[in-house]
Amino acid sequence: MRVPILRLGRVLLTSLPADLTDQQVMDLQIDALALIQAGKADGLVIDITAADVVDSYMARILSETAKMVKIMGGVAVLAGMQPAVALTLVEMGRDMIDMETAFDLEGGVAKVGRMVASRGGRHDEVPTA
Amino acid sequence: MRVPILRLGRVLLTSLPADLTDQQVMDLQIDALALIQAGKADGLVIDITAADVVDSYMARILSETAKMVKIMGGVAVLAGMQPAVALTLVEMGRDMIDMETAFDLEGGVAKVGRMVASRGGRHDEVPTA
Repeated sequence: MRVPILRLGRVLLTSLPADLTDQQVMDLQIDALALIQAGKADGLVIDITAADVVDSYMARILSETAKMVKIMGGVAVLAGMQPAVALTLVEMGRDMIDMETAFDLEGGVAKVGRMVASRGGRHDEVPTA
Repeated sequence: MRVPILRLGRVLLTSLPADLTDQQVMDLQIDALALIQAGKADGLVIDITAADVVDSYMARILSETAKMVKIMGGVAVLAGMQPAVALTLVEMGRDMIDMETAFDLEGGVAKVGRMVASRGGRHDEVPTA
Protein backbone atom coordinates (compact mmCIF):
# COMPACT_ATOMS: atom_id res chain seq x y z
CA MET A 1 0.00 0.00 0.00
CA ARG A 2 0.99 3.62 -0.56
CA VAL A 3 1.82 5.67 2.52
CA PRO A 4 -1.28 7.80 3.27
CA ILE A 5 -0.98 11.57 3.12
CA LEU A 6 -3.32 13.59 5.36
CA ARG A 7 -4.28 17.17 4.65
CA LEU A 8 -4.80 19.45 7.64
CA GLY A 9 -5.82 22.83 6.29
CA ARG A 10 -3.02 23.85 3.90
CA VAL A 11 -0.45 21.42 5.32
CA LEU A 12 0.14 17.83 4.21
CA LEU A 13 1.06 15.36 6.94
CA THR A 14 2.58 11.96 6.47
CA SER A 15 4.19 9.41 8.73
CA LEU A 16 6.83 7.00 7.48
CA PRO A 17 6.25 3.45 8.75
CA ALA A 18 9.17 1.51 10.27
CA ASP A 19 9.20 -0.94 7.36
CA LEU A 20 9.10 1.60 4.52
CA THR A 21 10.24 0.25 1.15
CA ASP A 22 12.16 2.18 -1.53
CA GLN A 23 9.10 2.02 -3.79
CA GLN A 24 6.88 3.48 -1.06
CA VAL A 25 9.20 6.44 -0.46
CA MET A 26 9.23 7.14 -4.23
CA ASP A 27 5.41 6.88 -4.39
CA LEU A 28 5.17 9.22 -1.40
CA GLN A 29 7.30 11.78 -3.22
CA ILE A 30 5.07 11.56 -6.31
CA ASP A 31 1.84 11.80 -4.28
CA ALA A 32 3.01 14.74 -2.15
CA LEU A 33 4.25 16.73 -5.15
CA ALA A 34 0.97 16.06 -7.01
CA LEU A 35 -1.07 17.44 -4.10
CA ILE A 36 1.12 20.53 -3.83
CA GLN A 37 0.98 21.05 -7.60
CA ALA A 38 -2.83 20.78 -7.46
CA GLY A 39 -2.80 23.74 -5.08
CA LYS A 40 -4.17 21.71 -2.19
CA ALA A 41 -1.34 22.61 0.19
CA ASP A 42 1.58 24.95 0.81
CA GLY A 43 3.62 22.66 2.97
CA LEU A 44 4.56 19.09 3.82
CA VAL A 45 5.53 17.62 7.18
CA ILE A 46 7.11 14.16 7.07
CA ASP A 47 7.04 12.44 10.46
CA ILE A 48 9.81 9.86 10.88
CA THR A 49 9.18 9.03 14.55
CA ALA A 50 8.53 5.37 13.69
CA ALA A 51 11.71 4.96 11.63
CA ASP A 52 14.53 3.23 13.53
CA VAL A 53 16.73 3.31 10.45
CA VAL A 54 17.07 5.87 7.65
CA ASP A 55 19.49 4.67 4.99
CA SER A 56 21.35 6.85 2.52
CA TYR A 57 18.80 6.19 -0.25
CA MET A 58 15.87 7.28 1.90
CA ALA A 59 17.79 10.30 3.19
CA ARG A 60 18.50 11.35 -0.38
CA ILE A 61 14.88 10.92 -1.52
CA LEU A 62 13.61 12.89 1.48
CA SER A 63 16.09 15.73 0.91
CA GLU A 64 15.30 15.80 -2.81
CA THR A 65 11.56 15.84 -2.09
CA ALA A 66 12.07 18.88 0.14
CA LYS A 67 14.01 20.63 -2.64
CA MET A 68 11.29 19.78 -5.18
CA VAL A 69 8.56 21.12 -2.89
CA LYS A 70 10.62 24.28 -2.40
CA ILE A 71 11.17 25.04 -6.09
CA MET A 72 7.46 24.39 -6.68
CA GLY A 73 6.75 27.18 -4.18
CA GLY A 74 6.06 25.18 -1.01
CA VAL A 75 7.91 24.25 2.15
CA ALA A 76 8.81 20.87 3.66
CA VAL A 77 9.85 19.85 7.16
CA LEU A 78 11.10 16.53 8.55
CA ALA A 79 9.82 15.83 12.07
CA GLY A 80 10.46 13.41 14.91
CA MET A 81 13.91 12.06 14.13
CA GLN A 82 15.13 9.54 16.69
CA PRO A 83 18.58 10.15 18.27
CA ALA A 84 19.95 6.91 16.76
CA VAL A 85 18.87 8.03 13.29
CA ALA A 86 20.47 11.47 13.78
CA LEU A 87 23.68 9.76 14.93
CA THR A 88 23.81 7.49 11.89
CA LEU A 89 23.03 10.30 9.44
CA VAL A 90 25.78 12.52 10.87
CA GLU A 91 28.29 9.66 10.84
CA MET A 92 27.36 8.78 7.25
CA GLY A 93 28.53 12.19 6.12
CA ARG A 94 27.73 15.84 5.90
CA ASP A 95 24.31 16.98 4.71
CA MET A 96 22.76 13.52 4.40
CA ILE A 97 19.54 15.26 5.40
CA ASP A 98 19.45 18.65 3.74
CA MET A 99 16.05 19.99 4.79
CA GLU A 100 14.26 21.78 7.61
CA THR A 101 13.58 19.69 10.72
CA ALA A 102 11.45 19.81 13.86
CA PHE A 103 11.22 17.76 17.08
CA ASP A 104 7.74 16.44 16.43
CA LEU A 105 4.71 16.72 14.17
CA GLU A 106 3.29 19.66 16.10
CA GLY A 107 6.59 21.53 15.82
CA GLY A 108 6.72 20.65 12.11
CA VAL A 109 3.26 22.06 11.45
CA ALA A 110 4.16 25.24 13.36
CA LYS A 111 7.40 25.55 11.39
CA VAL A 112 5.59 25.18 8.06
CA GLY A 113 3.17 27.91 9.18
CA ARG A 114 6.03 30.26 10.03
CA MET A 115 7.90 29.47 6.80
CA VAL A 116 4.80 30.08 4.66
CA ALA A 117 4.07 33.34 6.51
CA SER A 118 7.65 34.62 6.18
CA ARG A 119 7.64 33.73 2.48
CA GLY A 120 4.65 36.03 2.06
CA GLY A 121 1.57 33.86 2.32
CA ARG A 122 -0.04 31.08 0.39
CA HIS A 123 0.84 30.28 -3.17
CA ASP A 124 -2.78 30.61 -4.25
CA GLU A 125 -3.08 34.15 -2.97
CA VAL A 126 -3.37 36.89 -5.54
CA PRO A 127 -0.94 39.65 -4.56
CA THR A 128 -2.58 43.03 -4.01
CA ALA A 129 -0.97 46.04 -5.64
CA MET B 1 2.39 -2.53 6.36
CA ARG B 2 0.39 -1.15 9.28
CA VAL B 3 -1.49 2.09 8.69
CA PRO B 4 0.60 4.88 10.26
CA ILE B 5 -0.87 6.88 13.13
CA LEU B 6 0.34 10.46 13.56
CA ARG B 7 0.18 12.32 16.84
CA LEU B 8 -0.51 16.05 16.68
CA GLY B 9 -0.43 17.33 20.24
CA ARG B 10 -3.02 15.25 22.11
CA VAL B 11 -4.86 14.07 18.99
CA LEU B 12 -4.10 10.96 16.95
CA LEU B 13 -4.56 11.28 13.19
CA THR B 14 -4.82 8.47 10.71
CA SER B 15 -5.85 8.15 7.10
CA LEU B 16 -7.35 4.96 5.71
CA PRO B 17 -5.85 4.04 2.32
CA ALA B 18 -8.19 3.12 -0.55
CA ASP B 19 -7.00 -0.49 -0.50
CA LEU B 20 -7.30 -1.12 3.25
CA THR B 21 -7.44 -4.78 4.24
CA ASP B 22 -9.45 -6.27 7.13
CA GLN B 23 -6.19 -7.08 8.94
CA GLN B 24 -5.01 -3.49 8.60
CA VAL B 25 -8.21 -2.05 10.06
CA MET B 26 -7.90 -4.46 13.02
CA ASP B 27 -4.21 -3.52 13.52
CA LEU B 28 -5.19 0.14 13.36
CA GLN B 29 -7.75 -0.40 16.12
CA ILE B 30 -5.11 -2.12 18.30
CA ASP B 31 -2.47 0.56 17.67
CA ALA B 32 -4.84 3.48 18.31
CA LEU B 33 -6.19 2.00 21.54
CA ALA B 34 -2.62 1.27 22.75
CA LEU B 35 -1.60 4.90 22.20
CA ILE B 36 -4.68 6.20 24.02
CA GLN B 37 -4.17 3.73 26.84
CA ALA B 38 -0.54 4.90 27.15
CA GLY B 39 -1.89 8.39 27.81
CA LYS B 40 -0.36 9.81 24.63
CA ALA B 41 -3.65 11.21 23.33
CA ASP B 42 -7.24 12.11 24.24
CA GLY B 43 -8.72 11.74 20.81
CA LEU B 44 -8.57 9.99 17.47
CA VAL B 45 -9.52 11.33 14.03
CA ILE B 46 -9.87 8.74 11.27
CA ASP B 47 -9.74 10.30 7.81
CA ILE B 48 -11.56 8.24 5.17
CA THR B 49 -11.25 10.70 2.29
CA ALA B 50 -9.34 8.13 0.22
CA ALA B 51 -11.88 5.34 0.74
CA ASP B 52 -14.24 4.86 -2.21
CA VAL B 53 -15.87 1.89 -0.50
CA VAL B 54 -16.60 1.19 3.18
CA ASP B 55 -18.07 -2.30 3.63
CA SER B 56 -20.15 -3.46 6.58
CA TYR B 57 -17.14 -5.10 8.26
CA MET B 58 -15.07 -1.92 8.13
CA ALA B 59 -18.03 0.19 9.26
CA ARG B 60 -18.49 -2.12 12.24
CA ILE B 61 -14.80 -2.06 13.22
CA LEU B 62 -14.70 1.75 12.95
CA SER B 63 -17.86 2.17 15.05
CA GLU B 64 -16.57 -0.32 17.63
CA THR B 65 -13.19 1.44 17.77
CA ALA B 66 -14.97 4.72 18.53
CA LYS B 67 -16.94 3.04 21.33
CA MET B 68 -13.75 1.51 22.77
CA VAL B 69 -11.97 4.87 22.70
CA LYS B 70 -14.99 6.42 24.43
CA ILE B 71 -15.19 3.92 27.29
CA MET B 72 -11.43 4.29 27.75
CA GLY B 73 -12.03 8.00 28.32
CA GLY B 74 -11.22 9.43 24.91
CA VAL B 75 -13.11 10.68 21.88
CA ALA B 76 -13.10 9.55 18.23
CA VAL B 77 -14.27 11.24 15.04
CA LEU B 78 -14.57 9.96 11.47
CA ALA B 79 -13.67 12.58 8.87
CA GLY B 80 -13.91 13.11 5.13
CA MET B 81 -16.60 10.65 4.10
CA GLN B 82 -17.31 10.71 0.37
CA PRO B 83 -20.95 11.14 -0.73
CA ALA B 84 -20.98 7.69 -2.39
CA VAL B 85 -19.81 6.09 0.86
CA ALA B 86 -22.47 7.94 2.87
CA LEU B 87 -25.10 6.80 0.36
CA THR B 88 -24.03 3.16 0.61
CA LEU B 89 -23.85 3.21 4.41
CA VAL B 90 -27.35 4.68 4.73
CA GLU B 91 -28.76 2.21 2.22
CA MET B 92 -27.09 -0.71 4.04
CA GLY B 93 -29.11 0.06 7.13
CA ARG B 94 -29.51 2.27 10.14
CA ASP B 95 -26.49 3.14 12.27
CA MET B 96 -23.89 1.38 10.13
CA ILE B 97 -21.59 4.16 11.28
CA ASP B 98 -22.36 4.93 14.90
CA MET B 99 -19.75 7.57 15.73
CA GLU B 100 -19.08 11.29 15.52
CA THR B 101 -18.22 12.61 12.06
CA ALA B 102 -16.75 15.72 10.44
CA PHE B 103 -16.36 17.03 6.87
CA ASP B 104 -12.58 16.87 6.83
CA LEU B 105 -9.50 16.30 8.97
CA GLU B 106 -9.41 19.91 10.14
CA GLY B 107 -13.06 19.73 11.22
CA GLY B 108 -12.35 16.42 12.93
CA VAL B 109 -9.46 17.85 14.94
CA ALA B 110 -11.60 20.84 15.94
CA LYS B 111 -14.45 18.52 16.96
CA VAL B 112 -12.13 16.38 19.11
CA GLY B 113 -10.91 19.56 20.79
CA ARG B 114 -14.48 20.67 21.56
CA MET B 115 -15.51 17.20 22.76
CA VAL B 116 -12.48 16.92 25.09
CA ALA B 117 -13.13 20.44 26.43
CA SER B 118 -16.85 19.80 27.04
CA ARG B 119 -16.01 16.52 28.77
CA GLY B 120 -13.91 18.51 31.24
CA GLY B 121 -10.37 18.43 29.93
CA ARG B 122 -7.70 15.87 29.34
CA HIS B 123 -7.76 12.46 30.91
CA ASP B 124 -4.33 12.98 32.47
CA GLU B 125 -5.42 16.09 34.33
CA VAL B 126 -5.74 15.75 38.08
CA PRO B 127 -9.07 17.26 39.14
CA THR B 128 -8.78 20.05 41.67
CA ALA B 129 -11.04 19.91 44.69
